[in-house]
Amino acid sequence: MIRVGVIGYGYWGPVVARNFSGAEGCQLAAVCDKNPAALERAKKAFPGILVSTDPSEVLHSSEIDAVAVITPVWTHFEFAKAALQNGKNVFVEKPFTASAAEASELIDLAASRKLRIMVDHTFLFTGAVRKIRQLIDEGVLGKLYYYDSSRVNLGLFQHDVNVIWDLAPHDLAIMNYLIDAEPVSVSATGQCHLNGLEDMAYLTVYFPAMLAHINVNWLSPVKVRTTLIGGEKKMVMWNDLEADEKVRVYDKGVDITSGQGVYDLLVSYRSGDMWVPRVDQTEALKLEAKYFIECLEKNQAPFNDGLAGLRVVRLLEAAAESLKHRGRPVDL
Amino acid sequence: MIRVGVIGYGYWGPVVARNFSGAEGCQLAAVCDKNPAALERAKKAFPGILVSTDPSEVLHSSEIDAVAVITPVWTHFEFAKAALQNGKNVFVEKPFTASAAEASELIDLAASRKLRIMVDHTFLFTGAVRKIRQLIDEGVLGKLYYYDSSRVNLGLFQHDVNVIWDLAPHDLAIMNYLIDAEPVSVSATGQCHLNGLEDMAYLTVYFPAMLAHINVNWLSPVKVRTTLIGGEKKMVMWNDLEADEKVRVYDKGVDITSGQGVYDLLVSYRSGDMWVPRVDQTEALKLEAKYFIECLEKNQAPFNDGLAGLRVVRLLEAAAESLKHRGRPVDL
Amino acid sequence: MIRVGVIGYGYWGPVVARNFSGAEGCQLAAVCDKNPAALERAKKAFPGILVSTDPSEVLHSSEIDAVAVITPVWTHFEFAKAALQNGKNVFVEKPFTASAAEASELIDLAASRKLRIMVDHTFLFTGAVRKIRQLIDEGVLGKLYYYDSSRVNLGLFQHDVNVIWDLAPHDLAIMNYLIDAEPVSVSATGQCHLNGLEDMAYLTVYFPAMLAHINVNWLSPVKVRTTLIGGEKKMVMWNDLEADEKVRVYDKGVDITSGQGVYDLLVSYRSGDMWVPRVDQTEALKLEAKYFIECLEKNQAPFNDGLAGLRVVRLLEAAAESLKHRGRPVDL
Amino acid sequence: MIRVGVIGYGYWGPVVARNFSGAEGCQLAAVCDKNPAALERAKKAFPGILVSTDPSEVLHSSEIDAVAVITPVWTHFEFAKAALQNGKNVFVEKPFTASAAEASELIDLAASRKLRIMVDHTFLFTGAVRKIRQLIDEGVLGKLYYYDSSRVNLGLFQHDVNVIWDLAPHDLAIMNYLIDAEPVSVSATGQCHLNGLEDMAYLTVYFPAMLAHINVNWLSPVKVRTTLIGGEKKMVMWNDLEADEKVRVYDKGVDITSGQGVYDLLVSYRSGDMWVPRVDQTEALKLEAKYFIECLEKNQAPFNDGLAGLRVVRLLEAAAESLKHRGRPVDL
Repeated sequence: MIRVGVIGYGYWGPVVARNFSGAEGCQLAAVCDKNPAALERAKKAFPGILVSTDPSEVLHSSEIDAVAVITPVWTHFEFAKAALQNGKNVFVEKPFTASAAEASELIDLAASRKLRIMVDHTFLFTGAVRKIRQLIDEGVLGKLYYYDSSRVNLGLFQHDVNVIWDLAPHDLAIMNYLIDAEPVSVSATGQCHLNGLEDMAYLTVYFPAMLAHINVNWLSPVKVRTTLIGGEKKMVMWNDLEADEKVRVYDKGVDITSGQGVYDLLVSYRSGDMWVPRVDQTEALKLEAKYFIECLEKNQAPFNDGLAGLRVVRLLEAAAESLKHRGRPVDL
Repeated sequence: MIRVGVIGYGYWGPVVARNFSGAEGCQLAAVCDKNPAALERAKKAFPGILVSTDPSEVLHSSEIDAVAVITPVWTHFEFAKAALQNGKNVFVEKPFTASAAEASELIDLAASRKLRIMVDHTFLFTGAVRKIRQLIDEGVLGKLYYYDSSRVNLGLFQHDVNVIWDLAPHDLAIMNYLIDAEPVSVSATGQCHLNGLEDMAYLTVYFPAMLAHINVNWLSPVKVRTTLIGGEKKMVMWNDLEADEKVRVYDKGVDITSGQGVYDLLVSYRSGDMWVPRVDQTEALKLEAKYFIECLEKNQAPFNDGLAGLRVVRLLEAAAESLKHRGRPVDL
Repeated sequence: MIRVGVIGYGYWGPVVARNFSGAEGCQLAAVCDKNPAALERAKKAFPGILVSTDPSEVLHSSEIDAVAVITPVWTHFEFAKAALQNGKNVFVEKPFTASAAEASELIDLAASRKLRIMVDHTFLFTGAVRKIRQLIDEGVLGKLYYYDSSRVNLGLFQHDVNVIWDLAPHDLAIMNYLIDAEPVSVSATGQCHLNGLEDMAYLTVYFPAMLAHINVNWLSPVKVRTTLIGGEKKMVMWNDLEADEKVRVYDKGVDITSGQGVYDLLVSYRSGDMWVPRVDQTEALKLEAKYFIECLEKNQAPFNDGLAGLRVVRLLEAAAESLKHRGRPVDL
Repeated sequence: MIRVGVIGYGYWGPVVARNFSGAEGCQLAAVCDKNPAALERAKKAFPGILVSTDPSEVLHSSEIDAVAVITPVWTHFEFAKAALQNGKNVFVEKPFTASAAEASELIDLAASRKLRIMVDHTFLFTGAVRKIRQLIDEGVLGKLYYYDSSRVNLGLFQHDVNVIWDLAPHDLAIMNYLIDAEPVSVSATGQCHLNGLEDMAYLTVYFPAMLAHINVNWLSPVKVRTTLIGGEKKMVMWNDLEADEKVRVYDKGVDITSGQGVYDLLVSYRSGDMWVPRVDQTEALKLEAKYFIECLEKNQAPFNDGLAGLRVVRLLEAAAESLKHRGRPVDL
């Protein structure tokens, strides 16, 4: 039985706690938050567990095997480090840390203590992302041409991070999970309009043979959660706001045959059937919590480990650097 | 009566010819195309006009007051220059020219001859763009925050220009028309996948107090023609693929009031009614042809003159330069 | 303080209990269900209240002022009658009763005991229906031409009632609430395909000067919740599946001017702006529970009283009769 | 070479003329219309053909093998009869005739003269309808449960026929084409609001084991062209307003297994992939014109012959009768 303590019981903490509480082989043992009202809610939802305003009660408890850090990003490093130093595995909210240096230090610490880190890239456990990964694995899409994602809506404004650190970790984690190549450089543009933090931004990530683009915006009148993935054989549109038809697979594309000169290239269009595969609707975090427990039980590294978290943080740092210089490319 | 000759009778030429033919005060006098089959079609559609495979017949004819140049972009300069040198006003397909230098030379030439140049930025005459311009003029949107446009679909691949030169002139012309400020710098990213020309690209254009972003792509499985315009008071979504509800005006936004520290900024969201104004459905080119004739009759400069064309070409050149360096910003 | 007991704690009962529990001036005092597992859930959600498998404990308790009957329709009469006989006000799930005779008996009984009946036509408390009612009241729509509603989806099949008794009470209650006239006759058609109960049906309700049509179907591959309301001045489309834009008001219509003969009628179309008013998002049942308590406190009849319930039941009975004869009209 | 004369050159006549003009083995020989302006347009479009304001010139010409009657419905009988009497095959606009008696007389006349009648049920030649027919033929949908069509929009009001005679022939012809059974009875409801003719109507057509419903309305603020077809194995949604994704095939349904009593029926829902087959985009009338010529050349009866036209007219008559009595079912 893995005993889990949760630090941070604001918006996402209760969802994490509920899913660990329901996971087989797992016992929700403690909840910590500096807000007493939050602890009241935790007590009511999970009678009998330890609740505390003091993180060290969780971090030092001998009754706890793993700590879930569901707090603002600038505190991830401090809590995760203490947890690892006290021999506990960690489950850390995304983005993993506020800097690549912090991420690397946590990875090294975990390795030296033989502990596990999982970064909460929840979207990787959705039916939609798993289905797209399957389509890629089965060769349905063919060679990938591009990944293009929009994640825009009105608010919620954050006070501590800009829109890239708030929204782009989702897309960067999914992008890294789906694309079997390492990014080469990043160009980011964006602007602040209200509170001194960028509220809209555009990231282009160059890979050796393809491109990714991510559009994040807190100032959009409409909510959009759409990702296009262009492949040589087929193309995918994933609209996460659709209730039933999230993933659409288009048999559309371009075939090109070279003639004798540049103007002799023959481009022909393909436009065949479209197909909406059924996508598993299981709550993503439920699967992720189960997987975390399994990884600890089997002593194996999760695919969304510290390294996966670090890769996202590096991209965020590069994007921040590029953004300061209005799109100047930053090599990775 | 203004007598117009059309050079280039491929896809767009017949539409231009038909609209000049129907414009009051205008007489379609000649059509020129190197393809005899095109001329057969022209003859049938407009019995009695001069048709010729030789542009100089149009360019030198004393029976012609204005020449419409509806040919591939690399030929615009040559034809427009000859027309101006022969004392004719010109109507030039977008983009105006293949380089800013060419554009400047034509502008100077027209000025010295007291002739008029109009660049065919057709979209500026659509009901949707005119309505948005009206909303801005009336202060409905308030201070503009951003302009964000997507113009993507499958093909048509061009053999002579990349996707930026093919599709972005529309968006850049509209952007220039709607935003009352001069762009400061451009960052562009993109990639080629098939025939050596970029088939997808993203442009960010910085203005002093706002941002524009343009997404053009020949490799998208779905067709998108959507522009979001964020304003302080209201926001607009223009979906050009909607038959009846092209322009949506959202009473949505963010109000911010500063407290005593950065964390004391109070952000509140506004979400009121949405409104779809009726938009005039008159064919844009019909209005544009009429306006061209009026400008010549009244001897006044059109707002879509050579200078407007040059502004777009400068942005295209800057984008091409930035694209070569993966997003490196290019100052304007 | 009004003390409410809830009988029936299946799907809808917990929602009703939660809303009465949160209503000012109201105390949730008891929950009754024959299923012990349901009672366990009730106990956990509302610690300290009376739970029982025996309805008579609620119906006879001197600690209870009002009973909410949230059970299958064939049991409404029995429970509501007992409650009224024991001096308790009642809140009854829709449809009110299984027959008009039962409804009339309950209405008479309540009147003689000076007790109140409210029928749970929840939709009347949604922001969308209240907004439409407001548009009608303010004369925005003008004279009504028709009411046309579709409520279709896959399942859920009921074992005790056909699709008319299951789904149409919503539409009939809304229709009665919005149309200021009495229905004249009903024609209903439909068919059974699976379990001997009609799984799809169409109702036409004739009013003196307008028409209503209701389409209910358990066998549709897509979920539809759309109502069109045609008016002389404006028309409304209410799509309840839209998150933000539920009510659309179209300035569209037909103007007719008579000439000298039937063929001289001049029909002209009007197509102006469209407008999506902001709609209150408060949970409908929360407002309804509050209203029930207020009606009891102020001793006033609710607008969704027994009579409103009876009007719906009469339409259901007429529709059932017509359905048996493949559309034969049944006068009301 | 089949020589075709077209009577009626208003809205649809030119489309018919153009398609016969382009059909292999066919020569457009004459156009007749009482409106001289229409004839001017015909002359310009088809130089060299006979144009006339007098139908008898077409009906009696020895240079004509077939007559296309594209006139108001009340004139179909007169023109088609004269054509047949003069030894010409006929192509008649839908609805075939103004009464079943007229239709029968024409069918008998054609049989006795060994001439062919084709009724212009154009929709049967669309890619969408042909694809749905194919899905039914291949058993993809399984046993059909229902056919449910909506054809609503604002206008165009007709002066000579109500909305049923104007719009429902499309749906009735498609329904007859797709359903391999004979209709048993019709119930129709509807209402007039403006010019004395019903401007909205609902038809239910009973078949032995399934149901069809057709909703036609000239007073709708939104245009809808959607048909749902429920089958035991799969269900289809055909949205004719979609540019690319007209036909959607849902692997959704209900499986039912009987237990030991009525309440033991086990209903389980199926929800699998959705699939949008590519649909041929060829202009329907082009295929129909080609088919007409082939039927004449091969001397074979078209599937959309006079009998198919009569079946639609019988349904229209029955619907008109039912409509007068507010839904009273009329047996066929």
